[in-house]
Amino acid sequence: MSASRDIIEHIEAASAERFGAALAPDPATPGLDELRRCLEHRSHRRFDGRPVDPALLKLLFACAFSAPSKSDLQQAEVIHVVDAVRRKMIVDTIPDMPWITDAPVFLVFCGNNRRIRRIGEWRGKPFANEHLDHFMNAAVDAALVMMSFIRAAEAVGLGACPISHVRNHADVTSRALELPEGVFPVAGLCAGYPAAAGRMSPRLPLEATVHVDRHDESRLAELIDEYDRRRHGVLPYRRQRDTKRYGEAPLYGWSEDKARQCAVPEREKFGEYIRGQGFSLK
Amino acid sequence: MSASRDIIEHIEAASAERFGAALAPDPATPGLDELRRCLEHRSHRRFDGRPVDPALLKLLFACAFSAPSKSDLQQAEVIHVVDAVRRKMIVDTIPDMPWITDAPVFLVFCGNNRRIRRIGEWRGKPFANEHLDHFMNAAVDAALVMMSFIRAAEAVGLGACPISHVRNHADVTSRALELPEGVFPVAGLCAGYPAAAGRMSPRLPLEATVHVDRHDESRLAELIDEYDRRRHGVLPYRRQRDTKRYGEAPLYGWSEDKARQCAVPEREKFGEYIRGQGFSLK
Repeated sequence: MSASRDIIEHIEAASAERFGAALAPDPATPGLDELRRCLEHRSHRRFDGRPVDPALLKLLFACAFSAPSKSDLQQAEVIHVVDAVRRKMIVDTIPDMPWITDAPVFLVFCGNNRRIRRIGEWRGKPFANEHLDHFMNAAVDAALVMMSFIRAAEAVGLGACPISHVRNHADVTSRALELPEGVFPVAGLCAGYPAAAGRMSPRLPLEATVHVDRHDESRLAELIDEYDRRRHGVLPYRRQRDTKRYGEAPLYGWSEDKARQCAVPEREKFGEYIRGQGFSLK
Repeated sequence: MSASRDIIEHIEAASAERFGAALAPDPATPGLDELRRCLEHRSHRRFDGRPVDPALLKLLFACAFSAPSKSDLQQAEVIHVVDAVRRKMIVDTIPDMPWITDAPVFLVFCGNNRRIRRIGEWRGKPFANEHLDHFMNAAVDAALVMMSFIRAAEAVGLGACPISHVRNHADVTSRALELPEGVFPVAGLCAGYPAAAGRMSPRLPLEATVHVDRHDESRLAELIDEYDRRRHGVLPYRRQRDTKRYGEAPLYGWSEDKARQCAVPEREKFGEYIRGQGFSLK
């Protein structure tokens, strides 16, 4: 069965809006409705009042945890934060995002290196992987599960928004959720039925992010310049960062925003927190 | 439109096989065909001879890079390894996986912290985030893009298998792909049209990985024990690790396998490599 003209047109429009170049799929390709949803992904921060059915949420968790896991070590976990007091403890550390309080679903995806350590203790085996790679594996496992959750959530009509800010004060998040040694927050996620269509976030052109055989940044400066202009045309920033220090830029594009953002330290204590959770990172 | 009886039955069967408990979705839920694909995810290592159309691959990259990105910093990139010499350099560091050589598509998903550093240089702004969180953000961005790629690939009938082993000798992978300072491999991915149906990998029950309000491992030991037995019933391990040291276990389950696996150091030099790529990790 060929995809409908409607799906094809949406894919062309979404790829043009996202990457600045329309991609025309072969109508005979199966699964184009799913690719359309994927391309049309938007982050949602405002939700209508409808609750998410607990049975549906459980099904979405099942989809999420069907994601691949490094060496089948299954180092992800998720905490569904229902209790208002615990949620407030976390939200209070994120000054600009009071809307998290009202999201129908608030999750915190965690890396869990503790389970495999305990298994080793129970089975009398040493844990011989006190190094950076193991921390990264747990973080990546949690990210894979979160992304899988987002795709499943969007398939059933929900919208979501990841909240990496749960790491701004990781120690507070950790206390709120009673995370023991070996477990750490990777990202929060708000989810619910969207109250509005949302805006698509344009991305760097694929030429900047997809390479053949070797890393290539020969055209990076001009690609970013084009991207700044394209993005300014469709989704201009509403305010400029740190104008006291840098003034008002005539064209305030993505690169100027990100340069200003990265000039300010963020989460300098996260490493200390992670070491405190028992990771050597060596 | 309600989902067909066929899709419902597949979701029930897949959740039972994966998690040990059948989940029955409301037939009125939209997108159940996508949830079914998500739940039925399998890793594929053997592919039929069909090449992947370059236009389709590009569309999948577009889907992949539509994934969320931490603070819109867009710190992911992917290298499509076409050149046989470069691919061989990497495959030669992974002794047990010669099949990677023949995969129709071989990708390496990378974290790229370099782009935002260069943007800062070009725009005369300091980079004030020399710490662990920034390394993690780049790794997580790459993981989100890879997971998004896998979902899109499976939607169009492709199969895939992530290869974290590209980090076993990250320095060699890095040289093969000419990764400069600030860029590092997160995972490889083989993709193509599957030659066989593949086997589903059973997962820990959701009770072990999904918690409400607080981390909870009160029933962990018994849940793992049940899981070991369930898994042994449907997908027993074909060989036991390190029998010289530990002997033959009568019931060789997931936990015994993982305890033995983690007793052997892996990638102890990855931290050194990452520090050499310019990350302080402090």
